[in-house]
Amino acid sequence: MTSFEEAETEETVTCLHMTFYHPCQDSKMMFRCLNFSKREQVQADEITKFGRDSSVCRYNLMDNRVSRVQFSLQFYRKLNSSQFSFEIKNMSKKTKLTVDQTELGYLNKVDLPWRCIICFGDYQILAETQEGESMDYFETHFHLADLPILQERQLPSLQPIQERSISSFLPSPSKSPMELDENES
Amino acid sequence: MTSFEEAETEETVTCLHMTFYHPCQDSKMMFRCLNFSKREQVQADEITKFGRDSSVCRYNLMDNRVSRVQFSLQFYRKLNSSQFSFEIKNMSKKTKLTVDQTELGYLNKVDLPWRCIICFGDYQILAETQEGESMDYFETHFHLADLPILQERQLPSLQPIQERSISSFLPSPSKSPMELDENES
Repeated sequence: MTSFEEAETEETVTCLHMTFYHPCQDSKMMFRCLNFSKREQVQADEITKFGRDSSVCRYNLMDNRVSRVQFSLQFYRKLNSSQFSFEIKNMSKKTKLTVDQTELGYLNKVDLPWRCIICFGDYQILAETQEGESMDYFETHFHLADLPILQERQLPSLQPIQERSISSFLPSPSKSPMELDENES
Repeated sequence: MTSFEEAETEETVTCLHMTFYHPCQDSKMMFRCLNFSKREQVQADEITKFGRDSSVCRYNLMDNRVSRVQFSLQFYRKLNSSQFSFEIKNMSKKTKLTVDQTELGYLNKVDLPWRCIICFGDYQILAETQEGESMDYFETHFHLADLPILQERQLPSLQPIQERSISSFLPSPSKSPMELDENES
């Protein structure tokens, strides 16, 4: 047997795609600590925090109007199922956060639908969960939109979504210059 | 007006009472890092971990059979409600954890009923939530039982429980010497 044949079966990994949008012209500055170029592995038992304080948040938003910790994500396994999911918790006392139509106050939490829009302040985030099997870690993959996400969601053609929706939602250079050029800043 | 009359109304604080039991004669050793003498304040946004690794767990169980992180507790506010609650998550790959009749595998999580029994390995913990209003922090109050908790729960007289149940469940010196004498070790 070759080493390929003997190797352990590779597990698929849950990946949370997050497409960020902010209307401000300086949005490149706010998102400058996020890595849009590649997926990142996160330990399954880590509570992943997003916010202004880099000493406690894995992912920083460089904006005075963002709370020290704005929200957190928890990866978990559904009861009596092999499925994994994410739960979001609003960690900001000042700002409400919505997940689709559900409004979360401070310390409220809710399961992330596999495809949903998270909003707080002027921020809009399209969150899409790609299923995987690994219990050890998950991945995050960030994308940047320069068109509002909420408007796109309202298009009727986007409602029944198949598996290939993630790629259809990702910034497409032919439509508009969605990715930031790292040399521009 | 006196300063008493002018003072802000004092908020009540959610308190999680946890009564620990382990059948081993050395249980005093396992529980030696837990403070049974007084309530402890925990920040509302902290994920409270219990396990063997003191570098990541707030509460340590000094036992080789306990996982580095055995379980975690999350304090949260219920949606569309002013009520707070706790959620427990099994963080051990090796050991199942049960909350009453519900079995949790690794990364499974469930809301703690306001009064329930948590079990893993030979450990039994009676968890009782005393409601409060504060959004800033909650309290933990640990107690030690030297009689099994599961047997007590099976007594029919304990089923309909009123508010005073917490005190009725706490170790009573007249029944048996439940509290550890700190000089014994």
